[in-house]
Amino acid sequence: MKSKLSKLSKTLKNLKHNSINYAIPDLWFIEDLNIKHTKLKNHEILVNPYDYYISLIDNYILPNKKDDIDYSKSISLAYKERCDNGEWIKKSIIYSSHVRTSASYDNDRSMSLDISNLDDLCETGSFVKMLSLLPLLKKLGVNALYLLPISMYSKINKKGELGSPYSVSSFTKLDPSLKDSLTKKRMTVDEEFMAFIEACHIMGIRVLIDIIPRTNSIGSELILSHPEWFYWIKTKNKDKYRPPKIEKLGELSYPTLENMKIVYETKEVIDFIKLFEMNPKEKDEELWKTISGNTIDEKIEDINKKFGLSVAPAFSDCINDPQDPWSDVTFFRLYLDDPKETRSFLKIKHNPYILFDSIKTNIYSGDVKNQELWDLLSSIIPYYQKRFGIDGARIDMGHALPKELLKDIITKARKIDKSFTFIAEEMNMGNDKDVKKAMYNAMIGNGFYTLPRIKEGEFKRFILNSNSVALPLLSCLETHDTRRVAFREGGEKLSLFLTILSYFIPNTIPFINSGQEIYEKEPMNLGVDANLSDLEALPKDDIFYHKLALFDKYQFHYDNPKSHEIIDHLKDPLKVREKWLNIITDPKSYLRLRFEDEKDNLVGISYLNPKKNRALLIIANGDYNNKIKTKILLGELREKINNYNNIGNIRYATYELPRIHYDFKDSNMILELKPLEVKIIEI
Amino acid sequence: MKSKLSKLSKTLKNLKHNSINYAIPDLWFIEDLNIKHTKLKNHEILVNPYDYYISLIDNYILPNKKDDIDYSKSISLAYKERCDNGEWIKKSIIYSSHVRTSASYDNDRSMSLDISNLDDLCETGSFVKMLSLLPLLKKLGVNALYLLPISMYSKINKKGELGSPYSVSSFTKLDPSLKDSLTKKRMTVDEEFMAFIEACHIMGIRVLIDIIPRTNSIGSELILSHPEWFYWIKTKNKDKYRPPKIEKLGELSYPTLENMKIVYETKEVIDFIKLFEMNPKEKDEELWKTISGNTIDEKIEDINKKFGLSVAPAFSDCINDPQDPWSDVTFFRLYLDDPKETRSFLKIKHNPYILFDSIKTNIYSGDVKNQELWDLLSSIIPYYQKRFGIDGARIDMGHALPKELLKDIITKARKIDKSFTFIAEEMNMGNDKDVKKAMYNAMIGNGFYTLPRIKEGEFKRFILNSNSVALPLLSCLETHDTRRVAFREGGEKLSLFLTILSYFIPNTIPFINSGQEIYEKEPMNLGVDANLSDLEALPKDDIFYHKLALFDKYQFHYDNPKSHEIIDHLKDPLKVREKWLNIITDPKSYLRLRFEDEKDNLVGISYLNPKKNRALLIIANGDYNNKIKTKILLGELREKINNYNNIGNIRYATYELPRIHYDFKDSNMILELKPLEVKIIEI
Repeated sequence: MKSKLSKLSKTLKNLKHNSINYAIPDLWFIEDLNIKHTKLKNHEILVNPYDYYISLIDNYILPNKKDDIDYSKSISLAYKERCDNGEWIKKSIIYSSHVRTSASYDNDRSMSLDISNLDDLCETGSFVKMLSLLPLLKKLGVNALYLLPISMYSKINKKGELGSPYSVSSFTKLDPSLKDSLTKKRMTVDEEFMAFIEACHIMGIRVLIDIIPRTNSIGSELILSHPEWFYWIKTKNKDKYRPPKIEKLGELSYPTLENMKIVYETKEVIDFIKLFEMNPKEKDEELWKTISGNTIDEKIEDINKKFGLSVAPAFSDCINDPQDPWSDVTFFRLYLDDPKETRSFLKIKHNPYILFDSIKTNIYSGDVKNQELWDLLSSIIPYYQKRFGIDGARIDMGHALPKELLKDIITKARKIDKSFTFIAEEMNMGNDKDVKKAMYNAMIGNGFYTLPRIKEGEFKRFILNSNSVALPLLSCLETHDTRRVAFREGGEKLSLFLTILSYFIPNTIPFINSGQEIYEKEPMNLGVDANLSDLEALPKDDIFYHKLALFDKYQFHYDNPKSHEIIDHLKDPLKVREKWLNIITDPKSYLRLRFEDEKDNLVGISYLNPKKNRALLIIANGDYNNKIKTKILLGELREKINNYNNIGNIRYATYELPRIHYDFKDSNMILELKPLEVKIIEI
Repeated sequence: MKSKLSKLSKTLKNLKHNSINYAIPDLWFIEDLNIKHTKLKNHEILVNPYDYYISLIDNYILPNKKDDIDYSKSISLAYKERCDNGEWIKKSIIYSSHVRTSASYDNDRSMSLDISNLDDLCETGSFVKMLSLLPLLKKLGVNALYLLPISMYSKINKKGELGSPYSVSSFTKLDPSLKDSLTKKRMTVDEEFMAFIEACHIMGIRVLIDIIPRTNSIGSELILSHPEWFYWIKTKNKDKYRPPKIEKLGELSYPTLENMKIVYETKEVIDFIKLFEMNPKEKDEELWKTISGNTIDEKIEDINKKFGLSVAPAFSDCINDPQDPWSDVTFFRLYLDDPKETRSFLKIKHNPYILFDSIKTNIYSGDVKNQELWDLLSSIIPYYQKRFGIDGARIDMGHALPKELLKDIITKARKIDKSFTFIAEEMNMGNDKDVKKAMYNAMIGNGFYTLPRIKEGEFKRFILNSNSVALPLLSCLETHDTRRVAFREGGEKLSLFLTILSYFIPNTIPFINSGQEIYEKEPMNLGVDANLSDLEALPKDDIFYHKLALFDKYQFHYDNPKSHEIIDHLKDPLKVREKWLNIITDPKSYLRLRFEDEKDNLVGISYLNPKKNRALLIIANGDYNNKIKTKILLGELREKINNYNNIGNIRYATYELPRIHYDFKDSNMILELKPLEVKIIEI
């Protein structure tokens, strides 16, 4: 297969012209590129974009290429690695990126992110621009890049300025906005994604995508080919349409069978179910054949015009969830009949409908599987594996899929690549065993919620319990749905502290949410553990004030004077992690460190290597304001490691990073930690 | 005559295209322009340059145009004003500008001033760009714009990156670098200068130029047409060539007749005079005819090659001045024979030579005037009057010209425009009567030296004496040759204090040196009252560190966070000045204000209008650190003005500008002034 990365470099060389006023953040730039550039103020560098990307490919990426390796395949297949069922993710460091946002930059410095800027270039993120992030990812130690959805999303009822990437309108088309404007029409967006994956693989970074099999855009191309796979309502009833309120149940009730009985007894529910209509194709096959239009959107508009019908918006599977319906997406009809367990509750004649039970197909299944749809849904990942060579995936709302379908999806992918990895969108720690049983390799967990809550004791609890979870968790401090850690009380100092610590928590996989590494404060979405106050994270005169990256044009704040801080401070801890990686990721090597005075904001982690008589100690002071002087009880450690006379190489991982020799002869260790300091000690 | 300003607007409309990344300082921008623009950081605004200049002409300048006025003529002639022999300058506020520098800006924000930037535009100043300054000049109250030399200057032996505008190589050609790149080849530099003058005149701003009749560039076109007007040496002797040291005389001795006798007795002087050669044309007329080349520079190079001769560089007229020869300029041979008074001192046969006497032709004249040259020199101003409609001129080194020639120059100009004004480059206050006799309207004086020297008493002395000087002085705090006032001890606060005060000093004309209004600290030249330490005015990482605007590419520091301060603070004092202008500029209305405790840093000025029973008081505390509480002795004022019960309208002209009523019944006034505060009181 011909290298698309080489094609990209060649294309840029052909199109190259001088005199483009193109600025990039200094954090993306590396001096080794050896191109003409100018340091600007506010952490910016002025480059010629052609010179820049060409040199990035030719001088930074391609020199790492090994002969006879086909980088268009997943790393496991490319290097013909021994099958590990995707367990490599355990030893990875994950970076979560929304391409459109992570690689966006106001290149012409016009104070707005333009779709066509003063040089006729598009300033939102693209796969080509994502190459810019590779040096940064390497500095963070990242070797697994998780991409938020990259497939085509619909603009119908779109959220924000650009629409949500979760409003998928085609599983196999990549979103055209992710194609770069620099390459003009010489390359397709598919080729540019191939080039990017190739680059990642050359740099030793595996690529995971996000697939969304449970919901689909209300502007999806599948509505046209398979109207019967969707739920329908009259367009004129859209205003009435909202999840029925169940007076007898409390807020956010779980749809247990008991609760569903009450649901079906509620009058509002019957009125709600009556809103649903037969799908237009079955309603009038002849009229259906006349549906026309140049685009998907136009055709869907035509259905609306001719039938007066629209696809029904999706909503939360929680009873009495205060959220509005999700106006831009709908649910797939995974079963063609009603849920087995609840169907007897409903006495009236009705059309296929969405309700708290039919959403949760993992619990409420029908008898008639929508086999054609299931086949399609389980073929998405194989498509990306074969065409692009991806290495893994996160399954969105996987917990709401029929177990059988989930198994299909996972099995089919592992058939192509035995080491393909899966991450579960599961935040409930109690579900760890089920998730493991479903053959996932890792689950998100609730680190984003617990780790920043130090005073509340959640922080310590998470760290002490993580090693007993059935499969690895992400040690994520934030996700694209949550509050940013730098916006929490404790701010940038808390973020630095937790980010460093997150590289060492037992049975977890370090996970950086794009922007976290430069103390970005504005969340990307207000979905989870965030609220309207997060919209005030930026000053009012900031051009991205009140903007959410998941829906709007957004650029991270590289002009933060401390934008280099986390990366600089991670340098040494990362070396320690790499040196100790096999020990850290072996659950048996973990030993809790105990203190004479246990405190909620004080944790101690140790990893033992009895064979070599060595140990790694991580002690963290989560107090925002006060230093701690504490005695670590080394008894248990002493029993296993006989080397405590040789304690040394203390690394302060927060504000300074001196290496000092710790002259210590006693059996217990007395340490002083500054506020929000992590001490890393090698014995 | 067809309006060149309208042609400029039309040309820009024809050439207009979108998508140019063009930044200007926010201080140039005015919201009234009603064009699309973006506020950037660091006091910058992003505009489309075509829209910007078109709107500046059409919406800001042209609406002020009156019918039937020919703005291409001087304001005096255009408005057919009553002849005042150029005395209008007394009531003016002068802004001194170096076009190449004052209007330069890094429009593409590439961190360098480019001759051809990323948009193929020239970023150094031009006449078209000077239009940008008009709103700013109006805010400063400026109605007389003095331009440093604008004629073509030579690049031979050029100083700095660009060369000095004082190294004039043609009197009638404008320097091509002052043509703007936006208009391409649709307009000539002459047309653009005409458009600019027209714009100034419409806005009520008169234009003065700087003419340099004593020296000329060593790359001048006149060398080719009139080699006999210059002094010549062998090119190979250039290294030996330097003003002879006169051991018997001290440093910086004046060339009195007594001293010149000693000079001619010195052996070094004889050796020095022997260096001079006959001019090449007289040496070999046939060979002279063969001189060829495409440019002036090439032809001069050809003389050097064929004759081995070069024009002799100029040097200071002071004996034992430590300055090196001025490598880029030479002196004109104003007389074709030796100085009458000293010729008997020289016994050897010799060629025409430069010495301390032949430089100072105002004292040492010959018998044989170089009439053709004199005619040329006295025709320069008339050329600019007729072609461009200038309103006045400063004569460079006018004091070193034969009195007769100077008279010719002034008379010829006044023949065309009786109200044409002349400013003398005379800093010696003792020469005021001679300068007045020579028919100048104003002289520079030594304000730049005395006014910032407050503790030394010079400040107070200048202000107390200014009213007795024979003609108006400039109240200049700096010139293009001196240290910047904001770089002196006291810095920006001192600059704000003195700038406001300079609008009210008796018998002086306020004079702002371009950049002074935004606290520029780097001098433009180190010629007078400045030294090498001035080169450290900017931080080392500033791209203009060590650059001098007179020789290098230079841009003023509009990103100074206080760049608006002086202009904001001048608003109210300017209104007072305008209201009292006729009184302030009438020497008879001045009365010194006395204090109970006189201090060097405390001055009081008053202007009385006995007819209206009113007075204007200006009290200034020149102490950098301490407030002053003082009693003003109002006795004399009381005798003339009977209105002291009605004292009010105090304006604090420094940091706040409240208008408070001063409730005062006593015959003496007790006032408290903050450090570096100016109080303006209307009675």
